[in-house]
Amino acid sequence: MSEPFSAVEVIVRKRDAGELTDPEIDWVVDAYTRGVVADEQMSSLAMAILLNGMNEREIARWTAAMIASGERMDFSGLSRPTADKHSTGGVGDKITLPLAPLVAACGVAVPQLSGRGLGHTGGTLDKLESIPGWRVALSNEELMAQLESVGAVICAAGDGLAPADKKLYALRDVTGTVEAIPLIASSIMSKKIAEGTGSLVLDVKVGSGAFMKNLEHASELARTMVALGTDAGVRTVALLTDMDTPLGLSAGNAIEVQESIEVLGGGGPADVVELTLALAREMLAGAGIDDIDPADRLADGSAMDSWRAMISAQGGDPDAALPVARESHVVAAPSSGVLTRLDAMAVGVAAWRLGAGRSRKEDPVQAGAGVRWHARPGDQITAGAPLMTLLTDEPARFDRALAALEGGFEIVADASYEPRPLLMGRVD
Amino acid sequence: MSEPFSAVEVIVRKRDAGELTDPEIDWVVDAYTRGVVADEQMSSLAMAILLNGMNEREIARWTAAMIASGERMDFSGLSRPTADKHSTGGVGDKITLPLAPLVAACGVAVPQLSGRGLGHTGGTLDKLESIPGWRVALSNEELMAQLESVGAVICAAGDGLAPADKKLYALRDVTGTVEAIPLIASSIMSKKIAEGTGSLVLDVKVGSGAFMKNLEHASELARTMVALGTDAGVRTVALLTDMDTPLGLSAGNAIEVQESIEVLGGGGPADVVELTLALAREMLAGAGIDDIDPADRLADGSAMDSWRAMISAQGGDPDAALPVARESHVVAAPSSGVLTRLDAMAVGVAAWRLGAGRSRKEDPVQAGAGVRWHARPGDQITAGAPLMTLLTDEPARFDRALAALEGGFEIVADASYEPRPLLMGRVD
Repeated sequence: MSEPFSAVEVIVRKRDAGELTDPEIDWVVDAYTRGVVADEQMSSLAMAILLNGMNEREIARWTAAMIASGERMDFSGLSRPTADKHSTGGVGDKITLPLAPLVAACGVAVPQLSGRGLGHTGGTLDKLESIPGWRVALSNEELMAQLESVGAVICAAGDGLAPADKKLYALRDVTGTVEAIPLIASSIMSKKIAEGTGSLVLDVKVGSGAFMKNLEHASELARTMVALGTDAGVRTVALLTDMDTPLGLSAGNAIEVQESIEVLGGGGPADVVELTLALAREMLAGAGIDDIDPADRLADGSAMDSWRAMISAQGGDPDAALPVARESHVVAAPSSGVLTRLDAMAVGVAAWRLGAGRSRKEDPVQAGAGVRWHARPGDQITAGAPLMTLLTDEPARFDRALAALEGGFEIVADASYEPRPLLMGRVD
Repeated sequence: MSEPFSAVEVIVRKRDAGELTDPEIDWVVDAYTRGVVADEQMSSLAMAILLNGMNEREIARWTAAMIASGERMDFSGLSRPTADKHSTGGVGDKITLPLAPLVAACGVAVPQLSGRGLGHTGGTLDKLESIPGWRVALSNEELMAQLESVGAVICAAGDGLAPADKKLYALRDVTGTVEAIPLIASSIMSKKIAEGTGSLVLDVKVGSGAFMKNLEHASELARTMVALGTDAGVRTVALLTDMDTPLGLSAGNAIEVQESIEVLGGGGPADVVELTLALAREMLAGAGIDDIDPADRLADGSAMDSWRAMISAQGGDPDAALPVARESHVVAAPSSGVLTRLDAMAVGVAAWRLGAGRSRKEDPVQAGAGVRWHARPGDQITAGAPLMTLLTDEPARFDRALAALEGGFEIVADASYEPRPLLMGRVD
């Protein structure tokens, strides 16, 4: 088969800071999916895109080409409106777990097609798999039936959605080209648009534990994704939220499920409740529902009922005891004062090293592993009191986890602490 | 085996415009040669190097790492000093053919380890292979013996020299990363330093038919290579020479051998003679010889004697008739006036398309194919007179060659023509 372009001419155009044409973008994404453009050609193109950027037209076309590489789903036959949420990834970010059943309890269908964790950020599916019996894979028919009956589904995205993105993401992961805003935005949005949700709320994390370390880059990513979604007919808004400090009081798998259940029961850490409600309100607004306060659904137990139905529908036992790590190690506060900093990246890497996360996508994770912290920034600490508890099945992992935590927190005597707001901005 | 670095961390450092450390460079070049760093990782690193550059220390270390990937030769046992020449590649650039025997006739050993042509620039070995019986491959022992007896050798570089460069060059060719000064300089100099020459003259081409289109980039490349050679103990100088116009009056294989023999016989095009003598004088100076004028060795026939000895030593018959293309096509001048421009790239692509060059390294070339031009810029032209003759064994190739020449020359009535000098600069 004769090809209309050569990979080198496309690479050289972007290398020399030119704009790729629509036919060039369509070709290079399709030819890469077919294997005509080789991995080593796509990776040098990805580096050129990372360093020289793409304009709005190029990003929109790239996203459309990735969507066109696979199937598109259609939820328009459901009796409820649909709303989805995507987080760019953080530490202790279990928000999807209470959020999906909460929004379902308000009458909206939530098709949450999720991924696994890689590196220091945890994966929603890894967390839910700590529930005995719970099943990650659903057919498209099962997904539709559960959305109609329960309203909330959290499951693995099928291989049919945006296969070009799947292949490109794996390549970017090993070639130092993950952190390109055009490629991050098109990766996320191609899957969400192909999935067919009617509305979408993006949780763009900002801070040490996030891809985007500062508000400027995070805002650019948020604006890019909101424009892509809006242009594709998906009502899309983005919240910019803090990820200098990890969310809640735990990072791991079973221990984050436990914390999510506390929130669904009307308790839980204040920041997790605040972010869950903020995202729920945006999802309800996107779905056209303006007469329900999701806080009521936490208080009246209906969100918890949705959770139990959702877990049961996928074979899980909502009453089963969650796995517990075999070994624990307490980190005592080295001095008295105010905890002025608890670094999300340090905690995330520690949890990862304890066995909660994976380095390669084929690695297993430990259900019980992770980190619990017993204070949040602003809290008064007494020397010698427990500051964190490290959890793992393999005590040999403690040393490297402790090394990750070195310099990851700060206690200052007589400090006055000015909290950074959790909700830092909104883009629509 | 445990690796001291990860490819991603090295890529990310250069991507973010940082400097690579010496151990990182040593590791990444060695690990790429071993296959531990994958092609898709090296290509994204090459693109980051192309766009973010390397400083002098990084380039020197990269070059040293490529030298260390293979064997080093040693000519110090020879009874004569050694001098080598490298051209960055041009159209009609047959200079090596008369130059090597000329310098040998002056008492210097010339170990010219050469390559084949790829794309629009011809290859020295392809040209010599048009001589019946001539053999491109020599063992190291044969090379040494011929350097001692004849003084001049032009042969293929063995696989043992800088294998990392060989692998990296093939990768750059398909990933849009050829045009990076640090990578061009280290590629050329790693082979020349590993080869073990005592002195080296670089012919850095500038203009439409060269890699380096302008004097600024060519000067930067020349300075970089001269510094690399000097630091490695090789006396190195560079001449910057014009490649807007092709050299001499022919571009091809056998027809360039013919032109070279004319120069060795005391005739030939003036520009080929001028450049051959300029490079010969630099090579003699580098070898410490200051009492011989190479022009005398052309005039007294001793350079021709060296040529005949060199060709015979490698199995070639210096008296054999050279192959002639089966078909020819004359391009007549479309108007009368002064030839103000003859574009090297246009002529080079035409010769390539006629069969003188190859697109892929495994393609064969035609010995007789190429382009002869019958005027040089500044010459007065009469409408209808032959301007060029295209030569090939396959007449179906004429159309695409003619297309390459469209817009490649200009005839202006009553123009005054100011020639651009052939020798544009010198770096030592």
